[in-house]
Amino acid sequence: MNAKASAIRHRTARFFENTPLNLECGAQLSGIEVAYETYGALNAEKSNAILICHALTGDQYVASKHPVTGKPGWWSAVVGPGKIIDTDRFFVVCTNILGGCMGTTGPGSLNPETGAPYGPDFPVVTIGDMVNVQKTLVSSFGIDRLLAVVGGSMGGMQVLEWAASHPEMTSAAVVIAAAARHTTQNIAFHELGRQAIMADPDWDKGRYEVESQPRRGLSVARMAAHITYLSESALHRKFGRNLQDRDALTYGFDADFQIESYLRHQGITFVDRFDANSYLYITRAMDYFDLAARKNGNLAAVFQNAPVRFCVVSFSSDWLFPTSESRKLTAALLAGGAKSVSFAEIESDKGHDAFLLDEPEFHALLDGFIEDCAAREGLPAKDKTPSIAPDTRKTPSRPSPRNIRIDQKLLGDMIPKGSKILDIGCGDGALLHYLQEEKNTDAAGMEISMDGVRRCMEKGLAVFQGDADTDLEIFPDKSFDYAVLSHTLQAMHNPAHVLEQMIRISGRAIVSFPNFGHWGIRCALGLGGRMPVNGTIPYEWYETPNIHFCTLNDFEILCGQLKLSIDEKIILDEQGRPLEKKWYRFLPDNLRGVQALYLLSCG
Amino acid sequence: MNAKASAIRHRTARFFENTPLNLECGAQLSGIEVAYETYGALNAEKSNAILICHALTGDQYVASKHPVTGKPGWWSAVVGPGKIIDTDRFFVVCTNILGGCMGTTGPGSLNPETGAPYGPDFPVVTIGDMVNVQKTLVSSFGIDRLLAVVGGSMGGMQVLEWAASHPEMTSAAVVIAAAARHTTQNIAFHELGRQAIMADPDWDKGRYEVESQPRRGLSVARMAAHITYLSESALHRKFGRNLQDRDALTYGFDADFQIESYLRHQGITFVDRFDANSYLYITRAMDYFDLAARKNGNLAAVFQNAPVRFCVVSFSSDWLFPTSESRKLTAALLAGGAKSVSFAEIESDKGHDAFLLDEPEFHALLDGFIEDCAAREGLPAKDKTPSIAPDTRKTPSRPSPRNIRIDQKLLGDMIPKGSKILDIGCGDGALLHYLQEEKNTDAAGMEISMDGVRRCMEKGLAVFQGDADTDLEIFPDKSFDYAVLSHTLQAMHNPAHVLEQMIRISGRAIVSFPNFGHWGIRCALGLGGRMPVNGTIPYEWYETPNIHFCTLNDFEILCGQLKLSIDEKIILDEQGRPLEKKWYRFLPDNLRGVQALYLLSCG
Repeated sequence: MNAKASAIRHRTARFFENTPLNLECGAQLSGIEVAYETYGALNAEKSNAILICHALTGDQYVASKHPVTGKPGWWSAVVGPGKIIDTDRFFVVCTNILGGCMGTTGPGSLNPETGAPYGPDFPVVTIGDMVNVQKTLVSSFGIDRLLAVVGGSMGGMQVLEWAASHPEMTSAAVVIAAAARHTTQNIAFHELGRQAIMADPDWDKGRYEVESQPRRGLSVARMAAHITYLSESALHRKFGRNLQDRDALTYGFDADFQIESYLRHQGITFVDRFDANSYLYITRAMDYFDLAARKNGNLAAVFQNAPVRFCVVSFSSDWLFPTSESRKLTAALLAGGAKSVSFAEIESDKGHDAFLLDEPEFHALLDGFIEDCAAREGLPAKDKTPSIAPDTRKTPSRPSPRNIRIDQKLLGDMIPKGSKILDIGCGDGALLHYLQEEKNTDAAGMEISMDGVRRCMEKGLAVFQGDADTDLEIFPDKSFDYAVLSHTLQAMHNPAHVLEQMIRISGRAIVSFPNFGHWGIRCALGLGGRMPVNGTIPYEWYETPNIHFCTLNDFEILCGQLKLSIDEKIILDEQGRPLEKKWYRFLPDNLRGVQALYLLSCG
Repeated sequence: MNAKASAIRHRTARFFENTPLNLECGAQLSGIEVAYETYGALNAEKSNAILICHALTGDQYVASKHPVTGKPGWWSAVVGPGKIIDTDRFFVVCTNILGGCMGTTGPGSLNPETGAPYGPDFPVVTIGDMVNVQKTLVSSFGIDRLLAVVGGSMGGMQVLEWAASHPEMTSAAVVIAAAARHTTQNIAFHELGRQAIMADPDWDKGRYEVESQPRRGLSVARMAAHITYLSESALHRKFGRNLQDRDALTYGFDADFQIESYLRHQGITFVDRFDANSYLYITRAMDYFDLAARKNGNLAAVFQNAPVRFCVVSFSSDWLFPTSESRKLTAALLAGGAKSVSFAEIESDKGHDAFLLDEPEFHALLDGFIEDCAAREGLPAKDKTPSIAPDTRKTPSRPSPRNIRIDQKLLGDMIPKGSKILDIGCGDGALLHYLQEEKNTDAAGMEISMDGVRRCMEKGLAVFQGDADTDLEIFPDKSFDYAVLSHTLQAMHNPAHVLEQMIRISGRAIVSFPNFGHWGIRCALGLGGRMPVNGTIPYEWYETPNIHFCTLNDFEILCGQLKLSIDEKIILDEQGRPLEKKWYRFLPDNLRGVQALYLLSCG
């Protein structure tokens, strides 16, 4: 790539000149100006375009210097030459949204009918209207499908709108710190901000002059919003109860505390780069966003069989767009049968703002997902090896499945080619990757550790971050052919519940676990009087994650109680091989087996 | 009691007429008017007085009709004849705070020097100043000690101030949904409200006339605060995304959503009963509140040996005064060696407002604590039995310890009279109650279930609601003589950690648990090939809360590894009696013992 390829371009375009845009509110808008930035070059196949959608107070300057503040682009940490969204390889587009105030038509634009700014005469626009304008721009480049649409917060709402309304143009959707609806609390905070603006006499019912906009009201609105972007722990870490440029309380109403000074600064600087009416219109668009409402409250129906690969990310301390909303979205995507759905919650104390900040785990995850998008399109991998044909899925960055354990291979033998598999507690995805490659399975995993989730994403596997004890409910009935639980049953708090969930999800469950009835264990306890420790159970009693051991007999009795039929069982010896028929074959399996593998189905 | 005794009185008093009050800010204030309500009658011993402290926008009308709104008192659910704070038996006082606007001197009062309202010339007052005024009023009744000081939110801050500054006057302190400091986020929200008020031109630098106060700014401040009083789930339950008196979105800035209409209503009605300057001053007092700062950040030192019985209560969904702050406070109270410290977190989705609402678990807990306060003072119990002498601690409402298990009796025999005991996983407090009554121990418990916590409080036991796996850190080093863990070790996620914590807290630990090395269990597994189920271990393997079984040998080896010496051990048989020396006495204890009791100390 030459320097020019990753060059930044400030651009504007004008659409709907003759045929106006039909807005969701019923009004029409013509002559829409779109201000946008592009980075990098569109390849000949037009297959390398990534659209980035900005948040409420963001703009098109995702990776270029802001013309007002002079600060670097708002996502320079992620977007740029050699970065995660690599402008040397991808053609990146970011537009100022409809209703914004950085060049795209909004309430501050001139109303052609009056020659004065629209002000309160600007129609109320929606997230859907914003995306329609973006789509017109993207299509004007001749792009049929975007490699990915990526956005956080309100940007994530736009991503969801793309996937819902234009799924055929959206190969992959990265939805960060967002939700499929604005919650009651979200609306409440926005209404607070709007009331602050409208309470300012300078607002003048929206007919103010640019130079005399309602600065005080907008500043208060910004302060309110800013508090919601940070977690209490982030605020505490940054400011605590520290005093601002003073040694003692002044017993007055100056900014004694750093947090007060910081908020005032946030408010004051914001009004220099943002328009109060735009703030009203954009917050309203977010409040109105509720995808499920389009299908009588059934969010899954919105994404029915969407041919989109989703990556949903939340942050643990984000209370504005909490993980619970991302989980609800993920559940709906799974229930709707979207092509592929991954979800992860990043541990962070930085609150909602985390998506804009330096969060290495998030960036590693995003990198894995974007690289997989590139590999699927046959785009060059990060190390700039030459482009390979799209049908060759094994890119150099993808690890190859090897050294699979014998029990995992035996497990694979139970599964017919082309099946749809859910691996519960999938770790780094080794087994799933093996099944995908060798059995051509359609595979998804569930894993609790972030490291495992990231490694799965790198392998191109759909993975849901969660806890098998509590989160299996998210998978719809009969959504897989087989659910696999490999050496995890004994670490479950409620093994019976997990087995029932597996059968609900897939009808067939494959379960492997260590046998507490093995003669070695019995001898350790029965003769030695101590809890057993061995190769299969390598932990001391007081530190083991294995909290519900059972014997083969115990397990089979439980299966009977749950009315599960045992369709196949393989008992493995000390070497992890199926038990051989030796002279001591008259001994029961329960005594000889070190571990076991069961295929269960609805009895 | 006659009807007159519980009568409500609206009263005012005037203090500091000749000798002004020295405020924390350094200024002096004279001629302070105090508006207050009393309910019930002070008894001859002046031992039945309860002071209730109100929150930011509360007032003295705790259980009487509000003169402006006409609504019932803000805590009528709790305070009144026959209620939890029973005005038939207690003399209840509630004052409008210094700086308020319901009759007590505040920024809206006339400045004697100018004859005009103080406005911005009113000195910045603190929680300490407010409490000093309350103390003067209480002393004027001839009351030396308050039976209890009770308050939620900023009321809880006043309660803490009472306990910190006037411990000898505070028998019991009930601190509800409060904290020993205002957090960064708390300050941020208050600063937001103040900026909204100050941005309103009608504020006029604080020199407005009453009839033209900054209604718009104060209304926005109230809206902001109101959002913080509710949890997202409470907002969702109450309003969701429901529309207000309309069938469809209007695509405008009217209150389309119920939550918008509700917030606007909250803002508009608030300005009729509250003064904007009072709002500034009271929020400032809360921001300045930071008890630890008085002792260089050492909160424990603030409560050094305080002769006060504390009851600290938080609500799970309260994000304004979160449980974490209440836990920090509780830890400091324990570390400071306060007379008695109880803590509980009430499960509620109602947010901070929960303390004002109908929360049966909270009310049951408060009832138990208040009744114990009454019993300790020898006041008549709820059923109106005649007053009994203060030295008789067994009131009719107290259950008597009976039917203690043999192993618990044996455990009691290990403990010298008058010891200080912590029972971890104390359940309903039966063992502690037994030890307290029979051994005259100073007892505290830790219990995870709210039902257990409530039953402990009813018995007059200090109890900390928490999880032994994670919360033992809250107890200071060497703060007890013995820590007891009765039949709970096997349910711990990290038994070794729990043992280490017990030794840290008390130096000596008494542990009892079922022996997984018993011959019956060995036979079940060794010969039967199944996980054992019996009288001591009554659960199936897949549903047992007992996740870390061990044998006596296992346990003793762990004690060796942790360098704990076994000072005493008692092995119990099937009937829960110490093993007898029968013919099979050559068999090891590990085979014969069904359960065991160990006394451990630092090796």
